[in-house]
Amino acid sequence: MGSAVEPVGQADVIVIGAGMAGLRAAKELIAAGRTVIVLEAKDRVGGRLKHGKVAGRAVDLGGQWAGAHHSELLAEAERLGVPGYKQYQDGDSVVCLAGKRTTASFGVPDWPIEALTEVALLKSRWDEEMATVPADAPWAAPKAAEWDRQTVETWIEANLETPEGRSLARAVPRSAWAADASEVSYLWFMDVLRSSEGLDQLLGLQGGVLDTKYVGGMHLIASKLAGELGDRIRLGTAALSVVQDDDGVLVHTAKGGFRGRFLIIAAPPGPIGRIQFDPPLPTLRDGLQQRMAMGNTIKWWMAYDTPFWRDQGYSGQVIDEDGPVGVVMDDTQDGDPGMLVGFFDGEHAVAASGIDQDARQALVVSSLVKFFGEAAATPIGYADNDWSQEPFTWGYIGVMGPGAMTRFGSALREPVGRIHWAGTETSTEWAGYIEGALRSGRRAACEVAMRDNG
Amino acid sequence: MGSAVEPVGQADVIVIGAGMAGLRAAKELIAAGRTVIVLEAKDRVGGRLKHGKVAGRAVDLGGQWAGAHHSELLAEAERLGVPGYKQYQDGDSVVCLAGKRTTASFGVPDWPIEALTEVALLKSRWDEEMATVPADAPWAAPKAAEWDRQTVETWIEANLETPEGRSLARAVPRSAWAADASEVSYLWFMDVLRSSEGLDQLLGLQGGVLDTKYVGGMHLIASKLAGELGDRIRLGTAALSVVQDDDGVLVHTAKGGFRGRFLIIAAPPGPIGRIQFDPPLPTLRDGLQQRMAMGNTIKWWMAYDTPFWRDQGYSGQVIDEDGPVGVVMDDTQDGDPGMLVGFFDGEHAVAASGIDQDARQALVVSSLVKFFGEAAATPIGYADNDWSQEPFTWGYIGVMGPGAMTRFGSALREPVGRIHWAGTETSTEWAGYIEGALRSGRRAACEVAMRDNG
Repeated sequence: MGSAVEPVGQADVIVIGAGMAGLRAAKELIAAGRTVIVLEAKDRVGGRLKHGKVAGRAVDLGGQWAGAHHSELLAEAERLGVPGYKQYQDGDSVVCLAGKRTTASFGVPDWPIEALTEVALLKSRWDEEMATVPADAPWAAPKAAEWDRQTVETWIEANLETPEGRSLARAVPRSAWAADASEVSYLWFMDVLRSSEGLDQLLGLQGGVLDTKYVGGMHLIASKLAGELGDRIRLGTAALSVVQDDDGVLVHTAKGGFRGRFLIIAAPPGPIGRIQFDPPLPTLRDGLQQRMAMGNTIKWWMAYDTPFWRDQGYSGQVIDEDGPVGVVMDDTQDGDPGMLVGFFDGEHAVAASGIDQDARQALVVSSLVKFFGEAAATPIGYADNDWSQEPFTWGYIGVMGPGAMTRFGSALREPVGRIHWAGTETSTEWAGYIEGALRSGRRAACEVAMRDNG
Repeated sequence: MGSAVEPVGQADVIVIGAGMAGLRAAKELIAAGRTVIVLEAKDRVGGRLKHGKVAGRAVDLGGQWAGAHHSELLAEAERLGVPGYKQYQDGDSVVCLAGKRTTASFGVPDWPIEALTEVALLKSRWDEEMATVPADAPWAAPKAAEWDRQTVETWIEANLETPEGRSLARAVPRSAWAADASEVSYLWFMDVLRSSEGLDQLLGLQGGVLDTKYVGGMHLIASKLAGELGDRIRLGTAALSVVQDDDGVLVHTAKGGFRGRFLIIAAPPGPIGRIQFDPPLPTLRDGLQQRMAMGNTIKWWMAYDTPFWRDQGYSGQVIDEDGPVGVVMDDTQDGDPGMLVGFFDGEHAVAASGIDQDARQALVVSSLVKFFGEAAATPIGYADNDWSQEPFTWGYIGVMGPGAMTRFGSALREPVGRIHWAGTETSTEWAGYIEGALRSGRRAACEVAMRDNG
């Protein structure tokens, strides 16, 4: 495959992917004295972080929040001098589950006592069950086989009784990983729940996973990190094939070959399958890539003259398992227009991907009117970003259906010769979050540095 | 994307894939007066049909059997003058299910009456349930939602009692589609069971799906069909990207661009995801491709001086749900050495893919000794083919986990602009069989011819 042709670039380590995982891996390797070239298929860095503008304000078309426990991300933002601010949370949340709209003060919705009890028990049961899943080998959990042959939906139907409890349980994989309960494995779910420290973190705003946002946008952190790497990053340079021999790895692109002694692939597992490997990847690795579909999400913003919901006593937070818009949050910044941000997730994202943007805006407006009243009917701006239509990304987060984790999961981080794997899906903590991406980049860089003594 | 460059090839219709579906589509379009170019990534035609040799005899490394109801395949073989012969079936079968080895005369194993009753009831229940699945829209079956959120394994545990019944039920998706019960959707399974006319056909030799084989090999049919197409077929020409505009489709390859007014993609859904599309495929289509992993299979042959099992009263047929070798059949031809052919399927194929060929041979020998006694310990030849390691194919048959059919199934045959889809997975009858591939090729050719009036 063109091995006779001289490579156009050569480095100790080639990194495929300039998302947060690839950028972090490159940064660490340079600090360790290695030369690095980062190949990025898109014309921009950031991967699942992406710059956008709504009503004149910079917004994050992709990943946006740093969780309170996201230590590496919080530190990186501080190091790069990007100022953060807390997620607004004063007032009542709107909770639409099991066909009923209620409001929740201090996080407790106005539900029958049986439902509140069931949710409390669910939380402790999940805390206990997820604690049995080994972080570095979820496929070896005591109940791995039993949990991996059923979907989360099957589990819900067999184990929960109240409509509210079932509805909330369904909202968790959908809002956190953009995947429906009926398509993901219960073992995979217990593993990512463990990696996110459980329901309290997942449902929390300040103090939880939605703690902090950044002025100018989270994507600034990716841009600044990329700035430090300079011309080591090659944009618009998609890897077409990877040829591995005893001495190193040659990555073919339309702009020529890039040779390194090692290769880090920092991309979601599914899209990695687009690359042709010579020799072919082991069956376990290839099978894994075939079995991690990307969850579907469309992120949207709606701008208003003022954050009118605040005056009505609402925090702006909504969980709606019944309608097309699953999660809403206040995204107003000081001195800016009122801004709400939210998501179509899972099957709602698939459906909304098939209609045009105007029709999606109308759907969001009608949901917001249901949540906050008629004042929501007159926005001054709208934008959205359909991640399922994003080339080289294909969706939001790689998820696992039944059978994938127990049979193919062990390939997730296992190097293949001189190829090492990064990306948030490979992280043992905060898989699916920016924090997971950063940690995976550091881990992959470490693996290579330990093998590669110069 | 290089649209400024003159295409190196131009035709009414471009076909990607020279397996049986693509070859059949091309043949039909030529008969209808269209010009056609077939782009094939591999250096050979046939797709999942492949030529091999064991102990001096030609064998089929891939698809081998024509079922008694495979009308289009049987007719094609006759038209092309390839002589068929019946699957040998005299004598007892060996049945290893639920930890017990028994023999079966006339297909009825020596089981407790409860087990025999349960299997009989299972057959009629599946016959009834599969009849409720609309062939052209399985996602609209009355119980689609309920069936698609569970795996076949979950269904088995909830609905079957005897170890033998459960074991047999698990053997069906594994032996027919190389997929484990714990990873596939019950709705998908009901649909492919319907498309294969139910358990009687699937478990049958003569009169069933394993009725007829061909002297010289099934792959001869692909070669002869390809011979009729001549230099319209371009081997070693992988599609890298597909650019669609109002007038047609441009397929980029390393050997230049190929332009047609229409494009038929005749490949398994997963590997199609390797191609870059501009504009991107709709979310439904892309999501489907991400959710149809290829089942895992390793096909093997073992040659002996004589077919010694026949003298011992065995047919050579084995179903073994307990050991690594799931299915064995007699593959002896007149005047040749004794030959057994069989498969590692599903999780057994994944495990066996990780060891070398000598170790696989030892595994097969020890299984054959268990089935047929010590005479099986001294073979004169062995070969195998690991389909999970086959470039551009990735496995055996695309299968669906929970959630895929109800949410993404409608994209299976739905044209995307000027792109039409073929391949056995897209067939409403005999999906997963060579017959399904042929029928899908004819259907896709028809669709294009109906739109394209010259």
